[in-house]
This record gives sequence, C-alpha cells and structure tokens, in this order.
Amino acid sequence: MATVALIEYEDASPEVRAVYDDIREVRQTDFINNFWKGLANNPAQLRRTWEQIKAVMAPGAIDAMTKEMIYVAVSVANACEYCIHSHTAAARAKGMTDEQYNELLAIIGLAHQTNGLVSALQLEVDDAFKA
Amino acid sequence: MATVALIEYEDASPEVRAVYDDIREVRQTDFINNFWKGLANNPAQLRRTWEQIKAVMAPGAIDAMTKEMIYVAVSVANACEYCIHSHTAAARAKGMTDEQYNELLAIIGLAHQTNGLVSALQLEVDDAFKA
Amino acid sequence: MATVALIEYEDASPEVRAVYDDIREVRQTDFINNFWKGLANNPAQLRRTWEQIKAVMAPGAIDAMTKEMIYVAVSVANACEYCIHSHTAAARAKGMTDEQYNELLAIIGLAHQTNGLVSALQLEVDDAFKA
Amino acid sequence: MATVALIEYEDASPEVRAVYDDIREVRQTDFINNFWKGLANNPAQLRRTWEQIKAVMAPGAIDAMTKEMIYVAVSVANACEYCIHSHTAAARAKGMTDEQYNELLAIIGLAHQTNGLVSALQLEVDDAFKA
Amino acid sequence: MATVALIEYEDASPEVRAVYDDIREVRQTDFINNFWKGLANNPAQLRRTWEQIKAVMAPGAIDAMTKEMIYVAVSVANACEYCIHSHTAAARAKGMTDEQYNELLAIIGLAHQTNGLVSALQLEVDDAFKA
Amino acid sequence: MATVALIEYEDASPEVRAVYDDIREVRQTDFINNFWKGLANNPAQLRRTWEQIKAVMAPGAIDAMTKEMIYVAVSVANACEYCIHSHTAAARAKGMTDEQYNELLAIIGLAHQTNGLVSALQLEVDDAFKA
Repeated sequence: MATVALIEYEDASPEVRAVYDDIREVRQTDFINNFWKGLANNPAQLRRTWEQIKAVMAPGAIDAMTKEMIYVAVSVANACEYCIHSHTAAARAKGMTDEQYNELLAIIGLAHQTNGLVSALQLEVDDAFKA
Repeated sequence: MATVALIEYEDASPEVRAVYDDIREVRQTDFINNFWKGLANNPAQLRRTWEQIKAVMAPGAIDAMTKEMIYVAVSVANACEYCIHSHTAAARAKGMTDEQYNELLAIIGLAHQTNGLVSALQLEVDDAFKA
Repeated sequence: MATVALIEYEDASPEVRAVYDDIREVRQTDFINNFWKGLANNPAQLRRTWEQIKAVMAPGAIDAMTKEMIYVAVSVANACEYCIHSHTAAARAKGMTDEQYNELLAIIGLAHQTNGLVSALQLEVDDAFKA
Repeated sequence: MATVALIEYEDASPEVRAVYDDIREVRQTDFINNFWKGLANNPAQLRRTWEQIKAVMAPGAIDAMTKEMIYVAVSVANACEYCIHSHTAAARAKGMTDEQYNELLAIIGLAHQTNGLVSALQLEVDDAFKA
Repeated sequence: MATVALIEYEDASPEVRAVYDDIREVRQTDFINNFWKGLANNPAQLRRTWEQIKAVMAPGAIDAMTKEMIYVAVSVANACEYCIHSHTAAARAKGMTDEQYNELLAIIGLAHQTNGLVSALQLEVDDAFKA
Repeated sequence: MATVALIEYEDASPEVRAVYDDIREVRQTDFINNFWKGLANNPAQLRRTWEQIKAVMAPGAIDAMTKEMIYVAVSVANACEYCIHSHTAAARAKGMTDEQYNELLAIIGLAHQTNGLVSALQLEVDDAFKA
C-alpha cells in the first residue's frame, strides 16, 4: 500500500495532465504507471523527474535497452521491488532477450559477491586503476 | 589497509600461482591486482571466484564493455570504492568513451533518485509489469 | 509473515506488560504496534529498545515531528517497509503537512541521486568541509 | 582519488561557468566544491543537478537547516563519505547547534537499529499505519 | 511475483535435473525451494551457485548452524526478504534455539546502530586495529 | 577525518570518565578506541551505547567470538570501514583462527551473491520457510 494517494488522469490538475500527456506521447502508450500517479501529489517533483528521465534514458552513446539493464542493476542493489519490476519490464520491451537477461543476472550476482569480499578485505585501490 | 596480507606471486603456493598464471594468460597482462592477492589467503576461494569471473565476464549476449558498466553500477550502489575504481578502469580499457561514461553516471544518479522516491512512496507494482 | 510470533498483552509476561503499559502511558493510546509485539519475544531487548526510543525521540533541541521525518529518511534509505509506514504515520500524527511531506520526499530523492553520483565519482572531501 | 578530472573555473566552458556563477550567486560565496567540479565533465548533468538542488533545498515548508539534517541522515545510511562531510558542514553553516547535531546522531543510530531489527523480524505493517 | 518462471522438476532439462537431484541428495529432502527453480532458467548459473553453496556452507572450521546465522545477518543488512526467511528457517533446522535467535537479533540490531553512528562520525580507524 | 572532536580521558567530564573506566574494567585494557572518544561528545549516547554493547556482546547462548564474527558480517554489508576493522580485530582477539576467518569471508561473499540474485528475481517466499 502506497503512503500517498495515486492521482488518476481524471482527477489531475492541468499541470499534472500536461506531464501525463507528454509521457503518453513520448512512450507511445496510454498507460501511466503508478510511479507517476504517486509523484503527481507534488506536480513540480513530477515534472522535474519526468524531464530527467526523458533526457537521461533517451538513446545516446548507450542504447536504450542497455540503459534499462543498468537501471535494473542499480535497483537490485537498492532492493527496490517496484523499480526492479518496472525496469525489467522496460528492458524486455526494448528488446532484452532471455539470454541477455540471464547474463545480466549473473553479473549482478557476481558483482554483489566481489563487492562483499572487497568490503570485508578493505583492499587498497591499485595505482594502476587510478585515472 | 587491508585486513589480510597480500600474497605476491613469489610467495604463493603452486595452487595460487596456477590461478595467477591463468589470470595473466586470459587478460594478456602480467598485472595481478590486489583483489586476487587478498583472496589468495584462501586458495579455494581464489579459484572459485576467478572461475566465476572468467565465465560471467566473457563476451556473450552482452558485450564485455557493457558488462563492466553494469558491474560499475552495482559497485556504486554498494559504495565499494575498490570495485568502482577497478571496474571503471576495466570498462575504459574495454573501450568505454567519455560520452558513454557520462551517460552511465547519469543513469546511476537517476536510478538512485527514483529508487529513493519509490521506497518512500511504497508503491504497488503495476499489473502490467508482472511477467 | 513475521519470523517470530507476535506477543499480545493477554499472553505477555509481567516484564513485557510493564513495557507495554509504559508505551501506552507515554503515547496516550491503547494501540501497541507489531514492532513491540515482535520484540517481546526477548523482554530485555524490548525494554532496551523502548528506553532508547523514549529518550531519543522525545522533543529536545529538535522537535518531535522533525525527528520522525529524519527517521523516515533513514528508513527509506534502508528500504525498510514497516519502518517507512510506521514513521510516516508518526510524522503525520505529530503534525507533518502534505507540503512538508512533499518536500521531505524531494530531499530524499535528491540526496539519493547525489549520493549515487558522488559514489561513482569517488570525490575527495574538500578541505573546507573538514571540521 | 576521483574517477574524473575536476574542472576549475579557468578551464571551464561558458556553459559550465554559467552554472558556477549561479552557484556563487545563490550561495553568496566564491567557493565551488569538488562535487560541481566533478559533475562539470558533463555540463548537462551539472545544470540538471544544480537546478534540482536549488529548487529542493531552498527554504519552504521545511526550513533550510532541517533540510540539510535530513540530507545528512540519507547520506549516512548510504555511507557516502563526501556527502556526510559536505552536508554536515552545510547544516552547521545554516545554524545546527552541537545539541541538535547530537540529537541527529542519536536518531540516526536508533533508526538503523530498529530498521535492522524490523528487517530481521519481517513484520507485517499494522493496518493502523496504512494511509 | 518473480520476474522469471519457476522451473519444476518435471519440466526441467537433464542438466537442471542433475542439480536438483544433487540438492536432494545432499540435503536429504525432496523439497526444492523457489531459489533453485528461479535460477534454473540459466542452468550454468544454477550449477555454479549450487557448487558454491555446497562448498561454503558445509561444516568446517565454523559449524553449519553458525554459518546460517551469519548468512541471516548479511541478508538482514541487505533487506532480502526471501533470504531472511530461508536462512532463518535453515538455522533453526540446524539447531538454532530461541535463545540463540534472540541473541542473533540483538547483535544485528546493535551492529546496525553502531554502523550508523560510525558512518555519521566518519571515524579514523585506530592504529591498534590494523593487522 | 571525523566530523567531531575526539574526547581524551584527560579532557573528559566525570560522566564520560565513568564510562571510560567501565570500558577499561570490562575489557581489561587501558585502550579506549576512537568510537568511544567520538560518542563522548554526547555523554548520554555514550552511556546508552556502551550499556547495550556490554549486555549484547557478553557470552551467552552464542559465544563471544561468534558474536564478533556476526558483527563483522553486518558491518561488511553496510560498508562500514571502521566497524569492519574494529570487529575483525575483536574477533581475532577472541580466538578467530585464519581458517575460521576464511570461512567467514566465503559466507559473506556468497550471501551477498545470492541476496543480489534473489533481489533481481523477486522470488516469493516458499510456504515451507514460514514459521
């Protein structure tokens, strides 16, 4: 259960509707997911967040599917259930194959393991790794 | 300062040397970084970890550079200084450009922000995201 | 589902009842939430935890509502669902307005973003920030 | 050591200088801390981040000092050394007394403890806490 | 809801069945828990993970029950619901008493508290603690 | 560098000295580590924290060395450098052998890996694990 009410399009202010409309336009879908409906309690936060996502997640030097896989990796490390589900779905929608997903999971598992080992060992950074 | 001694090649047992030799062969470099020298206090752990990394980080359905970028993303979320430095260096060595690195940072920052917002809002996963 | 049984007042030992009674007295309510019912499996832990909360969360140099907002911020960072719900409810009960809650969320999101960016960049602390 | 070069004002592009100038104007100081110098490698990210901080951290329904204390709480939970130092300094600069700082620390310690206990106990959220 | 299908024995490939059979043999039970059924989507990952667990969790210089308690402690810190439930159950199955469980919880809570305080205080490591 | 001054015995108030004296008595050493010197800025917090540690870390149903190993496991997951060093040193002082330490590291690494995998897979808890 969310800590805030979810704002539906019908009940939204013009400022919120404008963001919802832009999400629909950019994503080419009518679907507005709960993340936006929750943020809509604070229209300025809704707009700031959407503007960032639109700018950062657009294809650039990294393609859109890879960006979603990186997003999944962060969300897993932060144990964010909603984020894991939504960005796994987004990565699949942008073309992630089962084989790629399996490799993503393997990297995530391995990275957590070596992060834990390194944290326990408190290793000094090798000079060779310094920029 | 590490919590364990770092085992140099000269002081290593044959079992440890065999892993070091394989690392050098696979990576085509003489350089053995501190992570391996720390793990070498437990030769079985050293071997298990290296075998995993060799299998998981080899190019597959995801290319080797992208794999390193995903590794960086996990390491940042886990605040693992050594891991961030070593995998950022590895991603660069495998061809990550400044532009790609900047986009990687932007995704990492954004994902942490939305992870935090979602955690605070305790949102229910939309049915549409369920596999 | 909890990993332990929840101890109701009726089934509680005198030592546990004494803590429950004090919680009711201090909070001016009959309601004992699940956190205490779970801790009650270890009466010494129950007492130690309650004594700490009573001391730390009382109004002092920081007012009680602000203390709850800080508690929410920590709980969000730790992705503790129960804690987020209970301390968001407590902050509201102590007077947090919707506007304050929206600002709290905005700070939490922003702080996670810059924490992630700083972790990725591995920045040195400026001398000016050292006490 | 940072994973990127720090961009000084003298070496900065006009786009970066404009942000630095605005930081100096808003904060009424010539000091530009390392966070901005690191972000300046990506001028668009620099601007987006500064615009957010300017909007979110300005006094509103929550005063500026309290906002910095909340920022410290998040940064501690994320173990972000740079962030802890910079926002502790900022909170002090905005008037946080030693007594308030001691109470902030006590809340942070306590919240981590109960977060850990709740995580271990896997408690169900009480109906009374649901919005 | 899992992000992947759970592979039942009946639907599993010979490679997956071989791992399931070994799990049953080593654990002396027919029960295959969801963790393995989820990993089975990637048979190589399934095998690697099982081989590690078999090697690491076997009684050695640390007894099997204590190993499970340590596993619980890590899982709590990572807020991994499934892991907390499964390893708490495993620790109990291997003989953990209620009294030991209560002490485990107390250590976990206390460690989180002092971790939080130390993070906030940014303390230097005493020379006496260096190996 | 710490965010607070470290209070030496000579400069301490009677209330702080009383805690320092008790630490020395219980631990049978003159050494007061930085954690206590930092907490001493808030004598009530110092006393509360010491009383808890004294109660929780004393040998009970779990022996004192195992308690320190569990403390290390939590501290690693929270990436708390000071805590990792101090509790690794404490575990060694209480008899942890190299072989036990190696097994501790292996469990910590493995638990992080499976925590990461489970987080990514979002697995449902098996009914068999419910208490």
